[in-house]
Amino acid sequence: MEHPGSMAAPVSDTIGAEIYALAARLYPICRSITGDGVRETLSILSETVPLERHEVATGTPAFDWTIPREWSIRSATIRDSAGRPVVDFADHNLHVLNYSIPFRGTLKLAELKQHIHTLPDQPNLIPYRTSYYAENWGFCMAHNRLAALPDGDYEVEIDAELRDGSLSYGEYLHRGETDREFLLSAHICHPSLANDNCSGLALLACLAARLRERKTRYSYRFLFAPGTIGSLAWLSRNEDVTERIDHGLVVSCVGDGGGPTYKRSRRSNAFIDRAMAHVLAHQTAPPKLLDFSPYGYDERQFCSPGFNLPVGLFQRSAFGTFPEYHTSADNLDFIGPEHLGLSYRIISSAIEIVEGDWTPLSLSPKGEPQLGRRGLYAALGGDKSTGLSAMSLLWVLNLADGHHSLLTMAERSGLTFAELAAAAELLRSNGLLADAATPPRS
Amino acid sequence: MEHPGSMAAPVSDTIGAEIYALAARLYPICRSITGDGVRETLSILSETVPLERHEVATGTPAFDWTIPREWSIRSATIRDSAGRPVVDFADHNLHVLNYSIPFRGTLKLAELKQHIHTLPDQPNLIPYRTSYYAENWGFCMAHNRLAALPDGDYEVEIDAELRDGSLSYGEYLHRGETDREFLLSAHICHPSLANDNCSGLALLACLAARLRERKTRYSYRFLFAPGTIGSLAWLSRNEDVTERIDHGLVVSCVGDGGGPTYKRSRRSNAFIDRAMAHVLAHQTAPPKLLDFSPYGYDERQFCSPGFNLPVGLFQRSAFGTFPEYHTSADNLDFIGPEHLGLSYRIISSAIEIVEGDWTPLSLSPKGEPQLGRRGLYAALGGDKSTGLSAMSLLWVLNLADGHHSLLTMAERSGLTFAELAAAAELLRSNGLLADAATPPRS
Amino acid sequence: MEHPGSMAAPVSDTIGAEIYALAARLYPICRSITGDGVRETLSILSETVPLERHEVATGTPAFDWTIPREWSIRSATIRDSAGRPVVDFADHNLHVLNYSIPFRGTLKLAELKQHIHTLPDQPNLIPYRTSYYAENWGFCMAHNRLAALPDGDYEVEIDAELRDGSLSYGEYLHRGETDREFLLSAHICHPSLANDNCSGLALLACLAARLRERKTRYSYRFLFAPGTIGSLAWLSRNEDVTERIDHGLVVSCVGDGGGPTYKRSRRSNAFIDRAMAHVLAHQTAPPKLLDFSPYGYDERQFCSPGFNLPVGLFQRSAFGTFPEYHTSADNLDFIGPEHLGLSYRIISSAIEIVEGDWTPLSLSPKGEPQLGRRGLYAALGGDKSTGLSAMSLLWVLNLADGHHSLLTMAERSGLTFAELAAAAELLRSNGLLADAATPPRS
Repeated sequence: MEHPGSMAAPVSDTIGAEIYALAARLYPICRSITGDGVRETLSILSETVPLERHEVATGTPAFDWTIPREWSIRSATIRDSAGRPVVDFADHNLHVLNYSIPFRGTLKLAELKQHIHTLPDQPNLIPYRTSYYAENWGFCMAHNRLAALPDGDYEVEIDAELRDGSLSYGEYLHRGETDREFLLSAHICHPSLANDNCSGLALLACLAARLRERKTRYSYRFLFAPGTIGSLAWLSRNEDVTERIDHGLVVSCVGDGGGPTYKRSRRSNAFIDRAMAHVLAHQTAPPKLLDFSPYGYDERQFCSPGFNLPVGLFQRSAFGTFPEYHTSADNLDFIGPEHLGLSYRIISSAIEIVEGDWTPLSLSPKGEPQLGRRGLYAALGGDKSTGLSAMSLLWVLNLADGHHSLLTMAERSGLTFAELAAAAELLRSNGLLADAATPPRS
Repeated sequence: MEHPGSMAAPVSDTIGAEIYALAARLYPICRSITGDGVRETLSILSETVPLERHEVATGTPAFDWTIPREWSIRSATIRDSAGRPVVDFADHNLHVLNYSIPFRGTLKLAELKQHIHTLPDQPNLIPYRTSYYAENWGFCMAHNRLAALPDGDYEVEIDAELRDGSLSYGEYLHRGETDREFLLSAHICHPSLANDNCSGLALLACLAARLRERKTRYSYRFLFAPGTIGSLAWLSRNEDVTERIDHGLVVSCVGDGGGPTYKRSRRSNAFIDRAMAHVLAHQTAPPKLLDFSPYGYDERQFCSPGFNLPVGLFQRSAFGTFPEYHTSADNLDFIGPEHLGLSYRIISSAIEIVEGDWTPLSLSPKGEPQLGRRGLYAALGGDKSTGLSAMSLLWVLNLADGHHSLLTMAERSGLTFAELAAAAELLRSNGLLADAATPPRS
Repeated sequence: MEHPGSMAAPVSDTIGAEIYALAARLYPICRSITGDGVRETLSILSETVPLERHEVATGTPAFDWTIPREWSIRSATIRDSAGRPVVDFADHNLHVLNYSIPFRGTLKLAELKQHIHTLPDQPNLIPYRTSYYAENWGFCMAHNRLAALPDGDYEVEIDAELRDGSLSYGEYLHRGETDREFLLSAHICHPSLANDNCSGLALLACLAARLRERKTRYSYRFLFAPGTIGSLAWLSRNEDVTERIDHGLVVSCVGDGGGPTYKRSRRSNAFIDRAMAHVLAHQTAPPKLLDFSPYGYDERQFCSPGFNLPVGLFQRSAFGTFPEYHTSADNLDFIGPEHLGLSYRIISSAIEIVEGDWTPLSLSPKGEPQLGRRGLYAALGGDKSTGLSAMSLLWVLNLADGHHSLLTMAERSGLTFAELAAAAELLRSNGLLADAATPPRS
């Protein structure tokens, strides 16, 4: 087996800024699970990486689900009795209940309030609410503004449409040496929420663009689809592909300064779970490793019992744990290029482990080989300090019995995968190791 | 397989009081490993639940042991030289060394002291002492009273008898749908000690009476037998029954406010061990989970290597850890209805798990089924709070691969068995789950 | 199987003093990986235990290595321009770089400093440095003395020789009932360093002398060889022996008051790892249990992947963790008879477990056997305190199902191996246990 070149080629310091700029372009668009917002988003992402775009018609079954109607919205306002706009979708696309049915009418304040969602504990923020699978109309607004509204009649107009159309998603497949796949998925359905998930969409697009220029062992599949119904649609059309998925990550909320957080796959100890745990363990910030649970993003679908794919979730702050979550405060000030850059590097490190793991077999297993005469070891004995480099050589040699891959060695030794991979390459180039999968002919 | 109705039918608030009242009736009786005290106790218990009573003749072998002679005692006194009673069995049945041989004589104080047991560290309490397998006579008394005795002659009279007779025990079998059994056992040999074990005897009798009115999956066997020799006698006469025992609990000291404490069976991870650990983990008081050790109550016999039954020990305060243990302070003031009620509910919850555990198989395993259109899920998306009920539905569906029983799901999810069982029933009634043991015909 | 007599026969209180006296005789000798220092050391050790001595010729291959030339040194000095000695090997054998090539010349101070090793952070101590596999000459000295040297010319003379000869090691095999072996190894190459490893050499010699007078189940092989190259030479000449090694310890730095420290074998859970963990767990000082790592002493070679022997490392303070390590402060004041005595007892206890472990099978497995009528149990019941002795009897009987050896019982019960072994002997002599390996004919 050939071992592809390291992906550790220095990541441009500007990667965080690139991701941020792309996320900022995506932020203003009003997305939903269907409709032109998703298509516009896919078009912008396609400027970075050429996406294959799919449209799945309304009414198409997807396992227990059915592709819903397509939603479009032109305007939504509440006006007071003097005709002054009190709430206007044009000001912020969170103002309308996402997937709201059209409505027009004049209501008393008390009636109107039945259709208005606020956050009493965060009274200046607009909440994000949806009503995908139950027909409803509504608005979201700051609690303080609602509280200040006088009694009286209010004129409501939601110029929206729900009609047969299609659900859109985008896909990019980077072909590697084998057809075994690494799935990277970000949900594309949330409107103006910067961290959730303009950050994930932009990061994956930039990552795909970089991978595109490399030779890899695995094939990498990037999926930009609406949450739940999008991943279900994809799964229902790609059951054959799922059998080739060896690793996967759902990526969301990767632009804030929290975490890093990794939620394990349902399998708990899949290779991606071990790789992410290893990468996070060597971060300076104490990472959060969460066990799988069936609530969250599209890992819910990928890890459903009929698929049970080895797909984890990577985030900075875990969803639901930060006050900006699902509010208008999840804006472009909440995410930062430095955070996006670190998130990128973490995912890249996991990919590096997936790409670079192999199982060394010592060609000199009885006793240690004499590293000194090969110039691989400090010449002077007795010194009480031993460089990590020497330790990495010794660990690799000691565990090179054909039963320990480099990741296993990293887990046992406490050294980083990168150190051990470098040590293993040095030892192999010195004729001291072979690949256990393809031992040299004797 | 049919799933019996929930035992969670509200337990009468008066159950603790009922158990207490029964324990109070048992308290004054002078019991031992043989004799009329045991028989009188069995008669009282039979008023609550109809016991099958057994008599095993003196001299009958029971494995390495032999049924001993029957002990009866009429009176026991120590009188000073003026004839005034210093110690009188009529005042407290702990005053006589349990199973004491008869004795009559006049002794100097120093000689007498060789036969008197006190607790110097708890000088006002009478200790509980026995001498079952070594012939001896003696008295137990408060250390302060002994210390106050003047030198002189003392007249001792123990009007007791050891003669061939039989050992008595009582048994009640509630037949369930299957002949697989749940054994519940309480020792009946201790005299006036309220927690150890009037509490256990009374609780099990009341539990048996309730179970009697239900249809259960398992058969429930209640055993009221003298400690050690009683369980050995039962085991030696019921070796065939032991092969049907899937679960078991020894119950003692369940009336005080300590614990709750569960000591695992020798197997460590039997179903009853997991069920009790789960029930205790969801108590507000931090529970004590003890590993098996070969000292204790009749779990010593049930868990001997020749049987190795899945039988644990449930207590409130663990034996030997409370100062009242094996003293006259273990009286009716030491136990309380509220503690007995909680102990009852804990054991009932474990029975509920034993009865109600099953292994769901999702009929819609690819992706999540759409709960919303079935009215099983909050209609409005985006809200950051998710009710436990939704989580229980999602957990059951996610783990319903035929390899996770409800208890396993509870252990993994951190949710209660009761929540998950309710969720599973709801999903089954909606056609989303089958029983993995009896999948529907396709 | 016969169970040899306990080694717990009281260790003479003078064992620590004996070991110390022997270590003190070894201390002044200038050893290296080859040469007369090793031979003189082997001669002294042979006074305590008759060693088989081996010479391996220069140039002999040992796996990836080759036996190096033999080093001898007569004198080494640095003199100032007035001819006064500044550094003299005669004062301390650490002054010369161990294995230094001969050299003679006059150098400026700046040039000379390229060949002088000091410890700036421990300015009064002489460091220990070697250059075995890279030709070099040099001196080691106190940093303060170097700092005080004035500029000027210095005359250097190292009267050493490297010539074809041989590497020496010594071996003692105590034959037991079986040819399965316990390997005990101490490195013999360090010069005047009392703890590292005069302590280990002396302890093993004294242990060998004691074992020599006993009948043992296992055969005990003692190896006194130079570090790395010595163990490699031995391994390369004894590959057949390695297949008989069931247990092993490398012993070094056993004379100081730190630790005790045990570093597990590469196997992590070999019998010796469990035995040492058990012995150390019952020490008063909190022990240090270290996972295997491939840096250290000759366990590096014994645990190389081609051998993977069950050999751990026993030390008091772990190497590299005490300031005296590899300096002139590792002298006879740093080690003490009391520490050597404790180290001896710890190793002896592990040997006792290796010798004395067996797997009991209860001959009365149904219920507990009646200990009372055999006089094995306190006659009086009800007392809340239970002696450890009774607990050890109960634990052995309970676990005597033929699947638990005494060490396994000790690990589960928390009792000491010695207590359980005594209990098991008592039960066997009472006809209650058989050896599961040789059950009695029925």
